[in-house]
Amino acid sequence: MSLNEFSLIEKFFNKQASRDDVIVGIGDDCALLQSPHAQSLAVTTDTLVSGIHFSPNVNPAKLGRKCLAVNLSDLAAMGAKPAWVTLSLTIPSVDELWLDQFCGGFFELAKRYDIQLVGGDLTHGPLSVTVQATGFVPELEALRRNAAKEGDSIFVSGCLGDAGAALILLKEDKSVPCKLLHRLECPEARVDLGIALRNIAHAAIDISDGLMADLQHILDASQLGATIYVDQIPLSNELKCAFSNNAAIDFALTAGDDYELCFTVSNENKKKYSALLEEYGCMCLGQIEESPGLNLICSDGSEYLTRSMGYLHF
Amino acid sequence: MSLNEFSLIEKFFNKQASRDDVIVGIGDDCALLQSPHAQSLAVTTDTLVSGIHFSPNVNPAKLGRKCLAVNLSDLAAMGAKPAWVTLSLTIPSVDELWLDQFCGGFFELAKRYDIQLVGGDLTHGPLSVTVQATGFVPELEALRRNAAKEGDSIFVSGCLGDAGAALILLKEDKSVPCKLLHRLECPEARVDLGIALRNIAHAAIDISDGLMADLQHILDASQLGATIYVDQIPLSNELKCAFSNNAAIDFALTAGDDYELCFTVSNENKKKYSALLEEYGCMCLGQIEESPGLNLICSDGSEYLTRSMGYLHF
Repeated sequence: MSLNEFSLIEKFFNKQASRDDVIVGIGDDCALLQSPHAQSLAVTTDTLVSGIHFSPNVNPAKLGRKCLAVNLSDLAAMGAKPAWVTLSLTIPSVDELWLDQFCGGFFELAKRYDIQLVGGDLTHGPLSVTVQATGFVPELEALRRNAAKEGDSIFVSGCLGDAGAALILLKEDKSVPCKLLHRLECPEARVDLGIALRNIAHAAIDISDGLMADLQHILDASQLGATIYVDQIPLSNELKCAFSNNAAIDFALTAGDDYELCFTVSNENKKKYSALLEEYGCMCLGQIEESPGLNLICSDGSEYLTRSMGYLHF
Repeated sequence: MSLNEFSLIEKFFNKQASRDDVIVGIGDDCALLQSPHAQSLAVTTDTLVSGIHFSPNVNPAKLGRKCLAVNLSDLAAMGAKPAWVTLSLTIPSVDELWLDQFCGGFFELAKRYDIQLVGGDLTHGPLSVTVQATGFVPELEALRRNAAKEGDSIFVSGCLGDAGAALILLKEDKSVPCKLLHRLECPEARVDLGIALRNIAHAAIDISDGLMADLQHILDASQLGATIYVDQIPLSNELKCAFSNNAAIDFALTAGDDYELCFTVSNENKKKYSALLEEYGCMCLGQIEESPGLNLICSDGSEYLTRSMGYLHF
């Protein structure tokens, strides 16, 4: 006899250690959770759909890991510490090996940050995964998109463009350098950095749609503009080897899925916390300006012309 | 130019009044929420998939309403007062009329209970909807599945079997009485009753998979058994007109989607709160027993034999 939903949940999803703030986890009508004192809840959700966000024959462990990581990245962008997640998994059929591997990837990452799966839904249908993650952050320390200030320096937390380049190579059936593929399949949410930036950064966002598109969200919310020096954008050696300099910069500016943080810091904090920013591999690539618009500047001072404006979802 | 994800969210999903406990709603990396004092959070999520849980040509307003209602039903079963929801909507293409109608149904129900949509995801892919709902309940007043006591009376909050009967008639291409169809398409979550039962009921669950299957969850969690008098199961006139008595009882016992509450009450509270229970249309149909197992008894005292055991998800 094949396992039903409840047996599958018991076998694959209900086997982790319990957090003290989880009064009731999986197995009742709702999870029952104890909110922390003097902190706000940061809540985010992301859906990954087979054939749109990943290939139908994706490695299930990597999918399990990534569907959690992309949500942790949103928490990081808010400066929140992850706590609870729910997982809604829609699968075309019950494949226990697939489920075991998916859960392996999911729970390995969850365990690293002491995150507990507190509920979800297991449904029959076209493969897709929706994760909702909740984290904690003191209200006044949350990193908001609307908090950039004129004169702030703009930082990113690591090399950009790798994931987007890997996706293009895959689509064109070309060989993909391992490191680029790894950036696409196993993004690293900058959870610790996000928490460290609480009293240092003004505005923050995670780069899921490309630097230009995501920085523009900060600029729109803050009603400001920015200048980016394109030669200061951190690019990996692998990306520079595989593509021309301009193509590499275009990936960094417009391709998504890197899940680095982009954030703004006052000049005072830029100096005061330079060691910390360096320790986390953060690079300054421009500054916030009073007048709206995003200026891309080459090393010779001329305007940089790029081809597109980030990932469009429809 | 077609609208992108952000314009669609702005146009259709970000137009409601704000609750005081929502510090940041839609439009940042995360929602930022203020937890209530001295209450726990009740969290639930449900996914509805086209072709599995609803027909691809479903009325979008009814789908928008139902995907919220089924989550509110889980909150009701815990005695929680709804507060915040997120909505992850996957659609095959952008159809603004469809979205407008879907949101009409969704927000009409949300408004009734002062629920705010605080985040979500709008994705391209096969039609499916995942809603996560969060409510508040004082920790010690939450209605748990494991809290039934020997001798408790078992109540249900209304007629059972209507939705399941409608589904069968639809599948067989037969005409469906309006009231049965309404029960299937527009389930009424028993939110107010759930809250009212906080200090009255012991255990509770909502009936989404059929009375037998859902009551069994209470019995398993409470390590007890039950006797149900099948002639005391409330059945609608429309169900009794459309089917034989035994078929109607079988729908009530084994068909899902009714979203009534099933709960257990001590004999003391059964007497003390009889007016309230009657006001909400609750009917007693059996009692909790010490020895495990679910006994179905006919009016002549003989055992009632049914055909199946509730909706199996795989």
